[in-house]
Amino acid sequence: MNDVLKKPRKVYVTRTIEFNAAHRLFNPELSEKDNLACYGKCSNVHGHGHNYELEITVSGIVDPQTGFLLDLKELKEILEQEIMDRFDHKNLNHDVVELQNSVPSTEVLAVTIWEVLKRTLQERYTNKKITLHEVNVHETRKNSVRYLGE
Amino acid sequence: MNDVLKKPRKVYVTRTIEFNAAHRLFNPELSEKDNLACYGKCSNVHGHGHNYELEITVSGIVDPQTGFLLDLKELKEILEQEIMDRFDHKNLNHDVVELQNSVPSTEVLAVTIWEVLKRTLQERYTNKKITLHEVNVHETRKNSVRYLGE
Amino acid sequence: MNDVLKKPRKVYVTRTIEFNAAHRLFNPELSEKDNLACYGKCSNVHGHGHNYELEITVSGIVDPQTGFLLDLKELKEILEQEIMDRFDHKNLNHDVVELQNSVPSTEVLAVTIWEVLKRTLQERYTNKKITLHEVNVHETRKNSVRYLGE
Amino acid sequence: MNDVLKKPRKVYVTRTIEFNAAHRLFNPELSEKDNLACYGKCSNVHGHGHNYELEITVSGIVDPQTGFLLDLKELKEILEQEIMDRFDHKNLNHDVVELQNSVPSTEVLAVTIWEVLKRTLQERYTNKKITLHEVNVHETRKNSVRYLGE
Amino acid sequence: MNDVLKKPRKVYVTRTIEFNAAHRLFNPELSEKDNLACYGKCSNVHGHGHNYELEITVSGIVDPQTGFLLDLKELKEILEQEIMDRFDHKNLNHDVVELQNSVPSTEVLAVTIWEVLKRTLQERYTNKKITLHEVNVHETRKNSVRYLGE
Amino acid sequence: MNDVLKKPRKVYVTRTIEFNAAHRLFNPELSEKDNLACYGKCSNVHGHGHNYELEITVSGIVDPQTGFLLDLKELKEILEQEIMDRFDHKNLNHDVVELQNSVPSTEVLAVTIWEVLKRTLQERYTNKKITLHEVNVHETRKNSVRYLGE
Repeated sequence: MNDVLKKPRKVYVTRTIEFNAAHRLFNPELSEKDNLACYGKCSNVHGHGHNYELEITVSGIVDPQTGFLLDLKELKEILEQEIMDRFDHKNLNHDVVELQNSVPSTEVLAVTIWEVLKRTLQERYTNKKITLHEVNVHETRKNSVRYLGE
Repeated sequence: MNDVLKKPRKVYVTRTIEFNAAHRLFNPELSEKDNLACYGKCSNVHGHGHNYELEITVSGIVDPQTGFLLDLKELKEILEQEIMDRFDHKNLNHDVVELQNSVPSTEVLAVTIWEVLKRTLQERYTNKKITLHEVNVHETRKNSVRYLGE
Repeated sequence: MNDVLKKPRKVYVTRTIEFNAAHRLFNPELSEKDNLACYGKCSNVHGHGHNYELEITVSGIVDPQTGFLLDLKELKEILEQEIMDRFDHKNLNHDVVELQNSVPSTEVLAVTIWEVLKRTLQERYTNKKITLHEVNVHETRKNSVRYLGE
Repeated sequence: MNDVLKKPRKVYVTRTIEFNAAHRLFNPELSEKDNLACYGKCSNVHGHGHNYELEITVSGIVDPQTGFLLDLKELKEILEQEIMDRFDHKNLNHDVVELQNSVPSTEVLAVTIWEVLKRTLQERYTNKKITLHEVNVHETRKNSVRYLGE
Repeated sequence: MNDVLKKPRKVYVTRTIEFNAAHRLFNPELSEKDNLACYGKCSNVHGHGHNYELEITVSGIVDPQTGFLLDLKELKEILEQEIMDRFDHKNLNHDVVELQNSVPSTEVLAVTIWEVLKRTLQERYTNKKITLHEVNVHETRKNSVRYLGE
Repeated sequence: MNDVLKKPRKVYVTRTIEFNAAHRLFNPELSEKDNLACYGKCSNVHGHGHNYELEITVSGIVDPQTGFLLDLKELKEILEQEIMDRFDHKNLNHDVVELQNSVPSTEVLAVTIWEVLKRTLQERYTNKKITLHEVNVHETRKNSVRYLGE
């Protein structure tokens, strides 16, 4: 069955999700004035917010029996628990443990999401070779940051 | 010149802009518990946020000399001053005078933006017949609210 | 509270959902040949399919207490039960009772969805004035059909 | 057949097409200096260009036999002949007869496309009641003009 | 001519196309019950469907005379013959020879399209160095699979 | 501060911009007839045009103090001066010095933009390690060309 899968095929599967969060670019080690100089309007005292769009990409060899790299329902559940529950309808500065000592920039967010998912995927897929390949965070339609574990 | 404009033509011109803001759905006249019952996760204490996309539509008769309903540079300036300066990179609950006594729902936001723009356009275009036709606020890719002054 | 809601404000709230379905344009009262003449490649014997994108718009007066027209969680539940359960991951020709004697064109789909939602919204919102305003079905990025109950 | 079509149903069918054209906002009755004052960078001597996206909407009663308002292949052919052949990969100031004496603004373009299609649809659908409802021209992602024949 | 092409420049050219197809995730070697356990609602007996969006990327050195990697009209023709004629308005389980013994998952589809195009491009561009770089299949706005021949 | 930045993290930051330009695919070393044979309708004498969408990607190690790879306001200024001022509302054949001896194909445009930005970024970020990673030019929704300096 699945003729093209008679030899191993490495694919990259991307799942796109969206969460809505508030944040303020603010470094508590700096004064309000220095924060304003560094972050400008992004440092507004009461914060602002975004519809963050994430593209999560995992890679590995397609299973010749199922025709899947992995069951997307499983990936969806993982993203629900690890990403949506952690970040959606939250304030990134106040509500997220992993960002407590951080400026919640898009760069920091991309690396943080990578760390969270890397750990979870390793625990879940110990036998299978499912690898986290890329986390791409779109803060707006115009700005995005990708992290690939480098 | 402009043959098709020899008779009056009513057009609807739409300008799309985006602003990034934090908000919390919270009615100060209710208890925290009642707010949670009413607004759920949208009532998160430290707020969340969105990339709000606005479609502002004005209507009127095309000027046969310029081929324009109105100069888009002018409309762009008005939207910069009245909308972007007021809402972009702001917290809707704390930073916007017009929303001080309000739950900043998408519905309330659409009506508030209508009121702000209606007044400004009337002051600016006293002689010309430029009418605000519609304010459409997209909170996410899935939810939007239109207000037409009814 | 909610200053702008001191006078009644009629808004149009749109919720966008997507379902994935197979269909075949086929009129059982006609021969295979006549179906092919009428529907061309859309009449392929084993069917084809689409990611249908729906924009459901309801209208009414904003509630001055909540700042909502209606609770979007409720609308989401209604659409889950009435639309997603009925059409998503289904074959429109074989699996949908309401389309049994019909050619499942986009036009017929838009009218059918209107009928289903009209009835449900009337049962749910007997006291409130929540009116179904429009059903817009996008079959592809290029083709869409709107029905407003006319 | 087609149960929901036992009573007449008026639908609005929208077809989206895209053409790529150059233009220059320039009024030959005015001096270069006055054109620059009026149109700014849009009056650049050698022109600029756009990917124009059109949404053409026709309305009428769904045919209870076919389940169609009209055959989309026919509409596609009309748009190919009347719109794509006339405007695609053209310079709006030099190559389009209908725009010879006009400033090719988005407003003028919307009205001109309306006139062209109105005539063609009337000739084609003499017996059927297919009405041109709206022409919506998107010049960019941010600017669009609708004309409804008013 | 073409100053920047005086040294060889490797570019990646992407063409996006869309086809509409029905499919059912079903492994004929398994029972109906096991198929349901594995594929859930995607295993619906009468199938469902999608608007598949493909991004086909080819790479190579830009021709210094034409300024092209390859003539896009040629690539368009190849994609019309090899992809659209094979998959558009088809049922992937019944109508596509290359998928006869396969579960038509997005992963299998991406690899199959790669194999079809790899062979065709090699036959067509024997002298030129045009290489198939990537096939990216978007099943929905949320799920996609890339294959790069690994 | 910024816990995840205690080890160096390489990210890819993408900024998306759009400019509107006219062009004509035309090689002055060839006859009109040969140009038509090579470029078809893209060789229309008076040109045509596009809304070009650019994705500019830079890469480097995130600054552990700011949480930024680079200040996006700076990148925005660079793109305004080097790209928008050079290409926006221009005719690529007549108005752009860097394209004087070139056929302004998407391939040539991508390489030209790379050369312009490479030089500017090197001058601006002499001490920091900010590297231009990729220039992706979308001519239409369907065609795009990426250049990575290879």
